[in-house]
Amino acid sequence: VSDDPGSTLSTTPEMAAIWSAEACVRRMLAFEAALARAEARAGIIPNAAAQAIADACRVERFDVAAIYREGVLAGTPAIPLVQMLTAGVEETGRGFVHWGATSQDVLDTAMVLQAREGLDLLSRRLLDIGGLCAEFAERHRDTLMAGRTLLQQALPITFGLKAARWLALVTRQVRRLGELRERISVVQLGGAVGTLAALGADGPRVVELLAQELCLAVPDLPWHAERDRVAELAAGLGVVSGAMAKIATDLVLLAQTEVGEATPAAAPGKGGSSAMPQKRNPVDATMALAAARLALGIVPVLLGAMAQEHERAVGGWQAEWAALPDLFRYTAAAVERVPDALAGLEVDAGRMRANLAGSGGQIVAEALSVALARKIGRDEAHRLAQEVSDRARTEGMDLREAALREQRVRETLPAEALEQVFEPAAYLGSTSIFIQRALDDFHALRSDDTGGLALGG
Amino acid sequence: VSDDPGSTLSTTPEMAAIWSAEACVRRMLAFEAALARAEARAGIIPNAAAQAIADACRVERFDVAAIYREGVLAGTPAIPLVQMLTAGVEETGRGFVHWGATSQDVLDTAMVLQAREGLDLLSRRLLDIGGLCAEFAERHRDTLMAGRTLLQQALPITFGLKAARWLALVTRQVRRLGELRERISVVQLGGAVGTLAALGADGPRVVELLAQELCLAVPDLPWHAERDRVAELAAGLGVVSGAMAKIATDLVLLAQTEVGEATPAAAPGKGGSSAMPQKRNPVDATMALAAARLALGIVPVLLGAMAQEHERAVGGWQAEWAALPDLFRYTAAAVERVPDALAGLEVDAGRMRANLAGSGGQIVAEALSVALARKIGRDEAHRLAQEVSDRARTEGMDLREAALREQRVRETLPAEALEQVFEPAAYLGSTSIFIQRALDDFHALRSDDTGGLALGG
Amino acid sequence: VSDDPGSTLSTTPEMAAIWSAEACVRRMLAFEAALARAEARAGIIPNAAAQAIADACRVERFDVAAIYREGVLAGTPAIPLVQMLTAGVEETGRGFVHWGATSQDVLDTAMVLQAREGLDLLSRRLLDIGGLCAEFAERHRDTLMAGRTLLQQALPITFGLKAARWLALVTRQVRRLGELRERISVVQLGGAVGTLAALGADGPRVVELLAQELCLAVPDLPWHAERDRVAELAAGLGVVSGAMAKIATDLVLLAQTEVGEATPAAAPGKGGSSAMPQKRNPVDATMALAAARLALGIVPVLLGAMAQEHERAVGGWQAEWAALPDLFRYTAAAVERVPDALAGLEVDAGRMRANLAGSGGQIVAEALSVALARKIGRDEAHRLAQEVSDRARTEGMDLREAALREQRVRETLPAEALEQVFEPAAYLGSTSIFIQRALDDFHALRSDDTGGLALGG
Amino acid sequence: VSDDPGSTLSTTPEMAAIWSAEACVRRMLAFEAALARAEARAGIIPNAAAQAIADACRVERFDVAAIYREGVLAGTPAIPLVQMLTAGVEETGRGFVHWGATSQDVLDTAMVLQAREGLDLLSRRLLDIGGLCAEFAERHRDTLMAGRTLLQQALPITFGLKAARWLALVTRQVRRLGELRERISVVQLGGAVGTLAALGADGPRVVELLAQELCLAVPDLPWHAERDRVAELAAGLGVVSGAMAKIATDLVLLAQTEVGEATPAAAPGKGGSSAMPQKRNPVDATMALAAARLALGIVPVLLGAMAQEHERAVGGWQAEWAALPDLFRYTAAAVERVPDALAGLEVDAGRMRANLAGSGGQIVAEALSVALARKIGRDEAHRLAQEVSDRARTEGMDLREAALREQRVRETLPAEALEQVFEPAAYLGSTSIFIQRALDDFHALRSDDTGGLALGG
Repeated sequence: VSDDPGSTLSTTPEMAAIWSAEACVRRMLAFEAALARAEARAGIIPNAAAQAIADACRVERFDVAAIYREGVLAGTPAIPLVQMLTAGVEETGRGFVHWGATSQDVLDTAMVLQAREGLDLLSRRLLDIGGLCAEFAERHRDTLMAGRTLLQQALPITFGLKAARWLALVTRQVRRLGELRERISVVQLGGAVGTLAALGADGPRVVELLAQELCLAVPDLPWHAERDRVAELAAGLGVVSGAMAKIATDLVLLAQTEVGEATPAAAPGKGGSSAMPQKRNPVDATMALAAARLALGIVPVLLGAMAQEHERAVGGWQAEWAALPDLFRYTAAAVERVPDALAGLEVDAGRMRANLAGSGGQIVAEALSVALARKIGRDEAHRLAQEVSDRARTEGMDLREAALREQRVRETLPAEALEQVFEPAAYLGSTSIFIQRALDDFHALRSDDTGGLALGG
Repeated sequence: VSDDPGSTLSTTPEMAAIWSAEACVRRMLAFEAALARAEARAGIIPNAAAQAIADACRVERFDVAAIYREGVLAGTPAIPLVQMLTAGVEETGRGFVHWGATSQDVLDTAMVLQAREGLDLLSRRLLDIGGLCAEFAERHRDTLMAGRTLLQQALPITFGLKAARWLALVTRQVRRLGELRERISVVQLGGAVGTLAALGADGPRVVELLAQELCLAVPDLPWHAERDRVAELAAGLGVVSGAMAKIATDLVLLAQTEVGEATPAAAPGKGGSSAMPQKRNPVDATMALAAARLALGIVPVLLGAMAQEHERAVGGWQAEWAALPDLFRYTAAAVERVPDALAGLEVDAGRMRANLAGSGGQIVAEALSVALARKIGRDEAHRLAQEVSDRARTEGMDLREAALREQRVRETLPAEALEQVFEPAAYLGSTSIFIQRALDDFHALRSDDTGGLALGG
Repeated sequence: VSDDPGSTLSTTPEMAAIWSAEACVRRMLAFEAALARAEARAGIIPNAAAQAIADACRVERFDVAAIYREGVLAGTPAIPLVQMLTAGVEETGRGFVHWGATSQDVLDTAMVLQAREGLDLLSRRLLDIGGLCAEFAERHRDTLMAGRTLLQQALPITFGLKAARWLALVTRQVRRLGELRERISVVQLGGAVGTLAALGADGPRVVELLAQELCLAVPDLPWHAERDRVAELAAGLGVVSGAMAKIATDLVLLAQTEVGEATPAAAPGKGGSSAMPQKRNPVDATMALAAARLALGIVPVLLGAMAQEHERAVGGWQAEWAALPDLFRYTAAAVERVPDALAGLEVDAGRMRANLAGSGGQIVAEALSVALARKIGRDEAHRLAQEVSDRARTEGMDLREAALREQRVRETLPAEALEQVFEPAAYLGSTSIFIQRALDDFHALRSDDTGGLALGG
Repeated sequence: VSDDPGSTLSTTPEMAAIWSAEACVRRMLAFEAALARAEARAGIIPNAAAQAIADACRVERFDVAAIYREGVLAGTPAIPLVQMLTAGVEETGRGFVHWGATSQDVLDTAMVLQAREGLDLLSRRLLDIGGLCAEFAERHRDTLMAGRTLLQQALPITFGLKAARWLALVTRQVRRLGELRERISVVQLGGAVGTLAALGADGPRVVELLAQELCLAVPDLPWHAERDRVAELAAGLGVVSGAMAKIATDLVLLAQTEVGEATPAAAPGKGGSSAMPQKRNPVDATMALAAARLALGIVPVLLGAMAQEHERAVGGWQAEWAALPDLFRYTAAAVERVPDALAGLEVDAGRMRANLAGSGGQIVAEALSVALARKIGRDEAHRLAQEVSDRARTEGMDLREAALREQRVRETLPAEALEQVFEPAAYLGSTSIFIQRALDDFHALRSDDTGGLALGG
């Protein structure tokens, strides 16, 4: 695990491990071993050579730090790696190491393998988040709270609906990551300029066998300088981070002292203050927001890096080496902190109800307007309801009281209908249907996905 | 069309028209008319009312500038629009305008309609680019040129392969835009807080009918504060812009005075200089690069805007109103300038061949290494070829000459095999196969797509 | 003014005017006229020629739209402008138009003139904001409210202090813009590649006279491809936008229904909702937040554009043409909407006090801890205060009550001292001193600056 | 040093050390010790307590990893640090640790101390770059080469002028960093909400003494939630990175096989290829470009983080903890790789001259036009020169030959004047003056700065 504060506070150990120097070397060695096997199967190099190479491709035998140290000078860690590997392979195989490949083939394919593992990790945690949201959606299906637009109370919703919207958002992300996984899981093998010249006529066959060895797909063409897949991956992680930021934003707003509708679970050492004894800070949601900000900064770096020069870029490709690991780590931190924030969240239904009532019933002003509109048209009704609302506010009355005092309202709506207007629970429209849809959709995904993720390579 | 220089130089008239104030108002009116029709079909409002509303929804009747002027104060153009529309609807319909909807429903659905049109425009132009690339790929299948990595000559490729890689990149973008189109073409109707409360139990039915009216799909849930679709759209446009930047980068590099392998078509008034009479600047590729830079700046704005507060955001949503049109316009400029740059491009095969030869044959050093490797192993061969290459450079010889002088080379390779090494055309590996794949894939797309785009709403 | 919604909703008419196509042409003509005058003064061209050129440099005579239309083809609007100008100059001057200059000289210097004007406009509005903040700082010097960290009530502050911090932030921005103005107000004149070759030995003299004519300074060297000044300008505008976002964030949070401490001034047509009659949305602060997001997206475009190729960039420079106007316009919208949000802001001191009390006195838990710490050390005091705070929360008591019940507290603090702890107004530390500092600093700036801005040119 | 590849390849050991977890803890301890001393000097805590605290503030005594591990839970590393410190302080001091301060005070002041050190490191390396550029500027003052606009040969310059422009760019960056250093070197001490309440009336005095202890300045107000200084710092680093990208861009373009005017110094293990024996890749410039891209991505993160909530942000502040170290590290990598790229650069004056001649003399077309313009006016001259230039190109002649064949040219210019036109060295305008200015300016800076940087804390 990395040494600097940011890496500790804005990553997760699992994701850091996937992108560690050692893991990258392990993946590069997996490429070299698979390449040798593929070339042996294609009859290009002797079986014994492939065996010797595969035997040497064990990360424990390598001085990982040295590879990167020399990589600084070489301009790529693949060159020292290939040299050290060659030195470590027995005589039979030594002459066939890295046959027909170029540095970028190794690095790009290793990156794909790491990214696939990273996506699987993210998907699993997103499913956890979905599970937590689904629970809230079910349990608080009917827990009334204020819906808020532009941070103003607007109309009643239920906490279950809010959780269901989070859930649907997460469900869509898992699907999106699944598609991304599919799309980026392609091998890179093109040789120095993408012609596979060193393999003569055997290029396509070797690519196919190599892809099989690594459980990857064969791309249309080598993609050494056309990085749309990498850019799309970056963008997808950015969207996931943004989704986490949405949920975390709602959480910190709900946890405000003056709102107090959902409070993070207390835990020793968590969310205190070095100065204020009373503090219970929403630290998980806060750190999720921080991590999402960090992740989003990297997306344009990877999009901008698409402007790659000719057959291999001069800067744009090399920027990926740090940008993509950073992006995965920050995204992982965002994804990790959200379930931490949700687990044990104390939902205060009483406070929700109280806040709803606190606005003097203004929250159902639209219900009044709609009830009136059925009789006198939407436009006039809106004006009348607005008058009543304004009067209530200026004179410090409840909306209900103000409505009852207004003759035009009484003339338009029978007493019974008017009472109905002031019952927030009666003004929830399709809330329950929407909650159910989000639940059904998530459960469908979860049954599909258990299989899918288990297969992950 | 907009008045400021940037808008003229970094957009296209067609895309500017799609996102003009008038076009936005027209789309908002389409929403209001369709909503009324849907509600009439659902039996919620009278048919006559729907008819009256639809009659009034004609953009010519509206003072578009006034809508936006008042929108500045209101915080959304939808409010003045609904007021003006209401005033313009005949008595029968007036009371039923905008029934059950909220400002965001109008604006978001209008935005979806504009975005769909924008995507179709981009896809059509991308197909044009693909067509131009395909021609180059075919015509220059065997036109030898230097492949370049880190801007250094590396190994031979053909210009056809370079064009085929552009083609494959473009083909993937058209596919991606097609998927995006599918994914974003959903209606937004949720009412003030996404419950459709004002529609009572009829919400889902109205959403369905509204979607039908507008040829859109029904989303899982209202998405007023979950903007992953918008973010994904933004990211997709960013990837397209990045793809354009890749092609344009290659073009400006090829057009360099010292390279001169592909020169922009001359045209009166094009690419001159106010100072230098001899200049033929690659202006289209240059402006494509500028536009792509502009487009990429906007992607993180739309990703960052995902952190939306509760049921409607306070800033993040409103930023979309300018960001998305800007992004479409800049992307369109990038997409438009690339075919301008490709059309009539003067490919100078002689210069390509000369540049290839110019490096004293160094470009086939790998071919020498590979030929040697088959006999003495890759590692030793690489070292030997490097020695030969270094000697050739220091002593100012051709690589071929240096190789012939080196006894170990002569001992390892028979004269014939050695001659073969110095024929770049013999060292192209899978070039031709890759070109064919890119062509086949594009042609398959084009036959599919003609239908697809024609259906576009 | 531009036609698209974003431009209307996210700019100001004044700033849009500064960056309009016409304004740009006017500035380019100012450059050409000044260049001619400077060259006449240097004895390079005849006085009569300079006079003829200056006579022709009147924007009314030009078809601005045509300049930009042809500029699309030419790759720069300067080329058609120079052609049209030449055609419009009388015989005596025609041969001397644009003498020794290149397109970039015209465009860059025009951009500097526009930017200077834009900065002055921003500075004036920032001073207005400062004035409003200063008023709040004075008037609410002692208006108690909750200080909030991580959106949790933390300790008491006064609204005056919050306003004073906004004020200090704005004061620093005005100073920073003043420095930026100084730094960017330099002429660009280098000829085609920055050597001023066409002026022979007279280059430096002409640069000096040209700078005089335009009230600009002489830069160290021509800066055609070294864009640090532009990048710094962009960054400075980004910081200003970020500062606006800080103030606007506080405003939307204070306006929340459940907080209600500061409400935007009501105005007809302002902040309503198309659905909810009761809404008074904080639209100005919201639009300021949106504009700031838009502005920030552009900063990296202009930083990234610094990687300019050789003596004139291929994309990076051209991106500035749209990016800088966009950035100025969005920044202006952010800067404009903040005073709109502040003017007439209804500060509810009662609600502030009530919210402060609402947390059951928890907000002074640190005061209790500090009072105890003086006797028993900081560490033990923190633990004890935390216990008391926890008990108060779990048992639903006031912190004061819980403290009185706790024997260790009673033993440590005399009754009087304990009562003092529970008076928030007594726990404000340096609040008043800080407020005064911010006021003094702003007033000092304002007296300095009145002169400075009047000189602007 | 960190473990992941990106950190190794895109940082420098020195900068990584400044921002390591240990360095951060050391700086936090420096704050705590200085605070205790300041408070003792102000008579707030006993001298013995201050001494005991200072004694305990030794980083070797702390389990740095544990601080960060617990910091993940606490939401800030300052809380576990203060706890561990308290536990480690002798009885006399234990009760006075962190007196009156809050976590943010510790973290922000530590960050300022690290940033100051980071800026000094960058400035020193920039001066090295300046030194290298100055040498090139002097040595190649008269080394003719093609000036290039839009990557097309335009007019002659000298390599000295190009180096002088790099030099001026670097000189301006050193000055800018010096100003930034001044501006950010302020202490942070505000207590929980910026009122210094726990210090009663002694707040300002303690701030002053603390600042003295740490060789920092006193800010106008505490800046816990007003982060313009941090944003400006970020922007300044972004501009430096952009400046490095400019130089590196020129270098990779000059090193192109077809240009070959400046080649990176050869070194064992440097710039080779795993496939191509002949490669001498410009790896330092390439990695500088990669690092600059990475750095620029972070700037908007720190600008966007300015929208901080109330008295302490919920995400925006915490994002700084990783963003600022990342930014410093990536900027350092960019700054480090440029001198590596410049040192030993092989400038090939012969190739420069050959490339200049290679365009068939087209590069002096402007000189011809200017010479003609003196007789027949600029407009007509431009047209005539363009005709000659076009003819030369189409008919494959030298420009000189084409000019001599054109009667109108011969009639206008005497033979002697015409010959003069075709001598590039005679068409350099103010080149030499500009070079001298850049040198003088740098030398002035260097004499100033030696003192300045030595003072660095």
